[in-house]
Amino acid sequence: MGLASFSFSGRSNRTPESPISYFMEQAIENPNLISLAAGLVDTDSLPVKAVADTMARLFADPQTGKAALQYGTTQGYTLLREKILQHVCNLDGVKPEQLNLTAQDVVVSTGSQQLLYLLSEILLDPGDIVITEAPSYFVYHSVLASGDVRVLTVPMDEEGMQTEELARLLEQLDRAGELHRVKLLYVVDYFQNPSGRSLSPERRKELLNIVRRYQDRQRILILEDAAYRELRFEGDDWRSIKSHDTGNEFVIYAGTFSKPCAPGLKTGYALLPSELIEPLLRLKGNHDFGSNNLSQYVLNALIENGAYHEQVRYLAGVYRQKRDAMLEALEREFSDLPGTHWTSPRGGMFVWLTLPEDINAGPSGKLLKECIREGVIYVPGEFGHVGKPGTRPTNEARLSYGDASIEKIHEGIKRLRRAVETVRRGEKKKERVAVAAS
Amino acid sequence: MGLASFSFSGRSNRTPESPISYFMEQAIENPNLISLAAGLVDTDSLPVKAVADTMARLFADPQTGKAALQYGTTQGYTLLREKILQHVCNLDGVKPEQLNLTAQDVVVSTGSQQLLYLLSEILLDPGDIVITEAPSYFVYHSVLASGDVRVLTVPMDEEGMQTEELARLLEQLDRAGELHRVKLLYVVDYFQNPSGRSLSPERRKELLNIVRRYQDRQRILILEDAAYRELRFEGDDWRSIKSHDTGNEFVIYAGTFSKPCAPGLKTGYALLPSELIEPLLRLKGNHDFGSNNLSQYVLNALIENGAYHEQVRYLAGVYRQKRDAMLEALEREFSDLPGTHWTSPRGGMFVWLTLPEDINAGPSGKLLKECIREGVIYVPGEFGHVGKPGTRPTNEARLSYGDASIEKIHEGIKRLRRAVETVRRGEKKKERVAVAAS
Repeated sequence: MGLASFSFSGRSNRTPESPISYFMEQAIENPNLISLAAGLVDTDSLPVKAVADTMARLFADPQTGKAALQYGTTQGYTLLREKILQHVCNLDGVKPEQLNLTAQDVVVSTGSQQLLYLLSEILLDPGDIVITEAPSYFVYHSVLASGDVRVLTVPMDEEGMQTEELARLLEQLDRAGELHRVKLLYVVDYFQNPSGRSLSPERRKELLNIVRRYQDRQRILILEDAAYRELRFEGDDWRSIKSHDTGNEFVIYAGTFSKPCAPGLKTGYALLPSELIEPLLRLKGNHDFGSNNLSQYVLNALIENGAYHEQVRYLAGVYRQKRDAMLEALEREFSDLPGTHWTSPRGGMFVWLTLPEDINAGPSGKLLKECIREGVIYVPGEFGHVGKPGTRPTNEARLSYGDASIEKIHEGIKRLRRAVETVRRGEKKKERVAVAAS
Repeated sequence: MGLASFSFSGRSNRTPESPISYFMEQAIENPNLISLAAGLVDTDSLPVKAVADTMARLFADPQTGKAALQYGTTQGYTLLREKILQHVCNLDGVKPEQLNLTAQDVVVSTGSQQLLYLLSEILLDPGDIVITEAPSYFVYHSVLASGDVRVLTVPMDEEGMQTEELARLLEQLDRAGELHRVKLLYVVDYFQNPSGRSLSPERRKELLNIVRRYQDRQRILILEDAAYRELRFEGDDWRSIKSHDTGNEFVIYAGTFSKPCAPGLKTGYALLPSELIEPLLRLKGNHDFGSNNLSQYVLNALIENGAYHEQVRYLAGVYRQKRDAMLEALEREFSDLPGTHWTSPRGGMFVWLTLPEDINAGPSGKLLKECIREGVIYVPGEFGHVGKPGTRPTNEARLSYGDASIEKIHEGIKRLRRAVETVRRGEKKKERVAVAAS
């Protein structure tokens, strides 16, 4: 008797393969490969001692140990939620009550990724519209694709999303009768993944003003993904968009302990309008009825005993050095190549490299193949864009200095340049052949 | 200017409030309340020392500590997946190769709940059919409701789901041209939540035979939820349904470390047909790109150093005593009440109590109100059934001996009996009034 094949759901069929899984495989198959692709954090600076000490103290009291090993609540550990609220407000120099926020408006999630997923599930039906920066965080694009959501993009410049373009896009959508489908504006406004750029203080306020224009007809929420905010090694900390949302009406602030502390604790959070809490928790109840409780106890203690803030200060130095190494290497290797430029992030872990237009750095382009031969990988910038292949820019690359050592950053950029040269020689040769044949 | 209200997604609107959240609130508001409702595990037996020692050893080696604090993979820690596979196969007395399984067919999840959610998302479209036991695990019903999935049920007896009834239901669906919508058969086959019953060895094989009858036209997967399997304190361990699925074609085995070890580690897993792995991981990539890595390292070490198995053996004694206490108390308090009976679980943490038909133990019935007044709560059995209110049995209750102490179990059942008496007196009075009035 034959065996019928499975039929998967529409959502499953719409869920693209993670671009990153390909790079993971490459890295596993070739240990000499330098990965400037992975979104891993710097391994050597992970707070092993602080976490070990904190856990030892937590478990020295059997009552606390038991509480950490028992089920928690769907919303998250109360003491941690209180600390999160205070922490974000401290960063913004405001008091919770000025933003109409209490710990009841905070939800703890399995990394901030889960928060993005849950929010999208409670807010978005197929055909709804989400507006993002171009480029934007490609895993979130994948979430939206799986939900059959329309993604519209607004171009960026060095100050982040171009708010004038956003205003124009919304006007257009309004005229076209599609305003009611616009649910969410997604911005990674600190040291963006993938571009490394930040949204300027003026534009933060402007973003909120723009969505407020429509508030009586359509509530457009701003999902402020602040994942990289605390990995800041240069310049002032800019106030969050959330800090301007004094009624707690328009902005969801999503944060994480993965980048500034430890991804292995897999704990993220959000501060969000009260009306969203109950629907979000109902859905999270179905997903897992609460994120890892042990990690929440560990983080609560790390904040309480000061180790968390110490770690954040320490990381600023570590990541600055690594960013410097990457910018130095790019300057050394690429400054002679016309049409090439890159961003200079003041935090986070990504540099966005734009190559001459004739260099195809896309997933099926020549450069990536050549890079793998040379022993270096990056994330093709194409993944950060939406739209059909062929319509997306292919000459960009996301370079991460998160995981690679300083030595490997230098060597990786050197290999990247060699790969670019090989591809250029190939292109020139083709041109010569074409000229000769014509 | 007014403020437009949010519009939530169809899925959000279909996601019911968790019945349990109401009981949580009751318990928080009244600390003297004895909860026979919560699904919490026994707090006093949580492995505080074993986890503390294991973490101390893990973090004594900075390399391991760093690895545990870094991102893991979406599928889960390889060493842990290998141990999980071996562990389940040991329980079943088979070798992985006899079931066509490798560690590549194992996925680690945020508790087994997340696994249930992910699987439902990749397999089920609105209108698809899932068959469950009646009663069944109410949180899974909620997942299915949110996905607009049709739930059909098969009655149980003391040997679990009645396989003859299942066979009849499938024949009916086939005749009605609906076989292609039947995607999943969900069974909690060890010490079921909520009934405490187990599926007999004969019926395990029969279940697989039944779905095989349709295999050339429709692949009906069996989702075997074995969450309570290892909390066994009496009788033999019955082979899983999975252990009969020698080609790894029909059965998804879902397990968890929450019940036999610690819910705070929030780690579950599944062994599943290879064809499901890639779609499942694509979706999990969108949810969180991997569950808590630290917990996976801790569990891997707990299994390796023997502490996990020691804990499981120890728990058997703890839960047997608590089960005994509940059965004793029920015998003492309820044996004189005609029309009342209850299950005698040989593992897990739930007893299913059936009261006389005129006692409404439902969420809006008199008994629950009276119980809260007396200071005890249970989960209304109605939640375990599907269908519109009014069509579901209302005289059943799920009683948990997981969290309450032996003393509180005795006292809780005493209060429950007093509440039943008060409700019966009220009913009799009404009857007398009705007779007098007629």
